[in-house]
Amino acid sequence: MSSTVDAVRGHIVESRHRVSAAVTDPDGKLVAFTGESDLVTYWRSCAKPIQVLPLIEDGGADALGIDDAEIALACASHNGEPRHLAVATSLLEKAGCTEEDLACGPHPSLSPAVAREMAERGQKPRKLHSNCSGKHAAMLALARFHGWPTEDYRKPEHPVQRRLLREVATWTGVDEARIGQGVDGCGVVSYAMPLRNMAVAYARLGVGFRVEGVAGENPHTLPPTPYTPAHRVLRAVTAEPFLIAGTGRLCTEILSSSNGTVFAKVGADGVYCAALPQARLGLAMKVEDGDMDAARPALLALLEILAPGAVRVADSFRSPVIRNTLGEEVGHLAAKVSLERT
Amino acid sequence: MSSTVDAVRGHIVESRHRVSAAVTDPDGKLVAFTGESDLVTYWRSCAKPIQVLPLIEDGGADALGIDDAEIALACASHNGEPRHLAVATSLLEKAGCTEEDLACGPHPSLSPAVAREMAERGQKPRKLHSNCSGKHAAMLALARFHGWPTEDYRKPEHPVQRRLLREVATWTGVDEARIGQGVDGCGVVSYAMPLRNMAVAYARLGVGFRVEGVAGENPHTLPPTPYTPAHRVLRAVTAEPFLIAGTGRLCTEILSSSNGTVFAKVGADGVYCAALPQARLGLAMKVEDGDMDAARPALLALLEILAPGAVRVADSFRSPVIRNTLGEEVGHLAAKVSLERT
Repeated sequence: MSSTVDAVRGHIVESRHRVSAAVTDPDGKLVAFTGESDLVTYWRSCAKPIQVLPLIEDGGADALGIDDAEIALACASHNGEPRHLAVATSLLEKAGCTEEDLACGPHPSLSPAVAREMAERGQKPRKLHSNCSGKHAAMLALARFHGWPTEDYRKPEHPVQRRLLREVATWTGVDEARIGQGVDGCGVVSYAMPLRNMAVAYARLGVGFRVEGVAGENPHTLPPTPYTPAHRVLRAVTAEPFLIAGTGRLCTEILSSSNGTVFAKVGADGVYCAALPQARLGLAMKVEDGDMDAARPALLALLEILAPGAVRVADSFRSPVIRNTLGEEVGHLAAKVSLERT
Repeated sequence: MSSTVDAVRGHIVESRHRVSAAVTDPDGKLVAFTGESDLVTYWRSCAKPIQVLPLIEDGGADALGIDDAEIALACASHNGEPRHLAVATSLLEKAGCTEEDLACGPHPSLSPAVAREMAERGQKPRKLHSNCSGKHAAMLALARFHGWPTEDYRKPEHPVQRRLLREVATWTGVDEARIGQGVDGCGVVSYAMPLRNMAVAYARLGVGFRVEGVAGENPHTLPPTPYTPAHRVLRAVTAEPFLIAGTGRLCTEILSSSNGTVFAKVGADGVYCAALPQARLGLAMKVEDGDMDAARPALLALLEILAPGAVRVADSFRSPVIRNTLGEEVGHLAAKVSLERT
């Protein structure tokens, strides 16, 4: 079954975005799909909730006194709003680091409104404003806790990145050697793998997956313990939906409106993943061409199939209007999405 | 045969843009294609070189003393650089109009560099900066010449737009009633039709096509007269390649480097058309998802097949580099384009 998001001008489809998605359970079974469930692409920022787990599992979060807000920010692709900066700063302090230690590059806020306000105030984005500054601060904290150097923490050969790769392999069920690697927008490793495996990691995140021993293709899944590091991540983001994105952002709206029954996380270039803990499902989707404007309506249409009525967000997310330079409504985006059950 | 432009990160394709194209001769024969040659989409700014023809044909250009620079600007999707504004102003003056009469909305320059410079100077874009201000000024001139009101010239029912629709039907070979209509980014009518018919118009533009009588599905093509309005358009844009786009823009680079043997014109949302007068061919292409960054490499790859070596532009147009927030090269766009001859 094919799924698209169409850009409609007047009554005619002008452009078309193709969507692939995989839905799995925590054991790796493909439950539903559209397009290519095994499409290989980069996980981008959807990896963040997995990348923060070693800090909790290895004991660093407790040892350094890292709180839920800081855990949530480590999972975030945030807007760089004042509270995001404050939490990033406090996480850096607990790691004994400063903004200077961050390896991420600056960029205008992911929120056009925040970016415009900053530009109008003549305020230039700094490293701390990077949507990934929480993830980077958590990487620095992991290095400090283990006594590893903080220099070059973003490089694939650094112990931080080797530890994170192992974690990604465990949760996705993809052997380390088979995980593709590229450089992300913020300068650290980005992981490439099939959508299906991204979905597995989110299904597992939702149920607090715990695995003993070394990660492999099919790690043996133990029953979840009463409280796992994954539970802590879910508790943190659910308690702090603003921190994982920010004002006017879809990830924040989904978490807030669903009371944590749906945790969706944006990647870049048209990727979204979501955990649906109650349904014991994980979702991974990609707009083939990487368009982010099309990704939001596609995600919402997929979630509506998987958890009808669970997410309540404005129509402007589901079917955004296209306006011209006069401000007139000249078209809209229309998601035409279906899932085939396997 | 399928054609794509792939966004490659590291060594892995991250996103994919699908490309459709049609190549025809002036009589409407499909000579080559890739993807869907009959894909219906909007012509957007590729219509401009046809939309200026009535001003020349009906005698307005001569009567009002409109020169080649002004004709070129009427065909332009320009950057809003000082010379573009000067020529737009002089065209408005010859029409007895002012910037206030323009119906187009303002927007930041199509050139990121020009847009950045204007923002840094605190200079807000005006109507005159609109990439379409030359087209709008020519529409006002057409209204003045015919004694039509200038008010509401952008509306489909205005005599200006009725005249232009007739011209579009003549050149594309699509009956007026079958041309789809939407509202363009600048507020005037945008035309929807199969790529194949867009290509026909450009093939005809290249050979100075002249037709007698009323336009129909298959207008009878007469041998070109020694000098037609289409010849004047081609002479104007070839003499003034800067005016049709501007600094750092592909349309300008193609015209300059090919000495006018290739006239390519950008539309919006992934559309390009080109006239290759010596080969008596017209080309129309669309990136399915509307991505403009992918459209440039796709166009250049198609032109290289149709006119090997004719266009000399920087590699940054053919295979643009993708950089991260640290300025590092993390990937590139790769056009994989082929044409099937019919």
